[in-house]
Amino acid sequence: ESANEFKFQKDALTQKLKETESRNQTLEAQLNDLELRLESSQLEREAYRKSLRSLLELLDSKIFELTELRDTLAKLMEGS
Amino acid sequence: ESANEFKFQKDALTQKLKETESRNQTLEAQLNDLELRLESSQLEREAYRKSLRSLLELLDSKIFELTELRDTLAKLMEGS
Amino acid sequence: ESANEFKFQKDALTQKLKETESRNQTLEAQLNDLELRLESSQLEREAYRKSLRSLLELLDSKIFELTELRDTLAKLMEGS
Amino acid sequence: ESANEFKFQKDALTQKLKETESRNQTLEAQLNDLELRLESSQLEREAYRKSLRSLLELLDSKIFELTELRDTLAKLMEGS
Repeated sequence: ESANEFKFQKDALTQKLKETESRNQTLEAQLNDLELRLESSQLEREAYRKSLRSLLELLDSKIFELTELRDTLAKLMEGS
Repeated sequence: ESANEFKFQKDALTQKLKETESRNQTLEAQLNDLELRLESSQLEREAYRKSLRSLLELLDSKIFELTELRDTLAKLMEGS
Repeated sequence: ESANEFKFQKDALTQKLKETESRNQTLEAQLNDLELRLESSQLEREAYRKSLRSLLELLDSKIFELTELRDTLAKLMEGS
Repeated sequence: ESANEFKFQKDALTQKLKETESRNQTLEAQLNDLELRLESSQLEREAYRKSLRSLLELLDSKIFELTELRDTLAKLMEGS
């Protein structure tokens, strides 16, 4: 091949490489962004489940207290 | 520059391009995977919230029914 | 004793008997009244207890339904 | 009338008066007994109503706490 042809091919390759590397940077930025969103979504979800767990425990104690109230009423009715 | 030198540079560029394109494919696969996980996580979350909404409505109706029971008891006590 | 004296005693006794019989009638009327009030009070109390028993059963069913709701929430949280 | 006849009437009246007074005592005892039972029944009823009033207040506070729990759940769901 002639030196000119090599020069042409080299320039084309250099251009293609530049584009591919630029595409790479874009993809890596998107990947980082998605990873951050996924991580933040999991932290949020963790906090959400923690709040729900507190609510479940609160609901348990309310059901327990209603059951005690029910038993007090039942004893009151037996005694009368 | 000599033809040899151009040949060497072209091979080096071709190699570098191949690596960059391979890296690109890896990144795109990771990106697709993450997008699917995020989407599936959002669908799950949507279903979760729908179930919670049903529970909230059920809780509302139970509180309403307890309030009716409370009013019946209050009336019974007024009447006696 | 003289007939006069007997006559006087007889009149006094007749008067005393009349008063005692009148007092008897008053007491019997009061007794009847109290018995009716006691009976009516017991019927009322019976009705009251019946209403309370219905409320107790209603409370039982509300506690049962809240417990089902609590179990549904617990399962939802385990699954997520 | 003869003294004998008056004597006979006086004795009959005295006997009748004794019986009526005895009947009076029985009636007064029954009346006292009933009054005590009615009073004790009213005291019991008062204590019963007091206990029921405490239960009603307890039920009010449980319904209030369940409503707070419900509002916390609703806010948690809005925020997510």
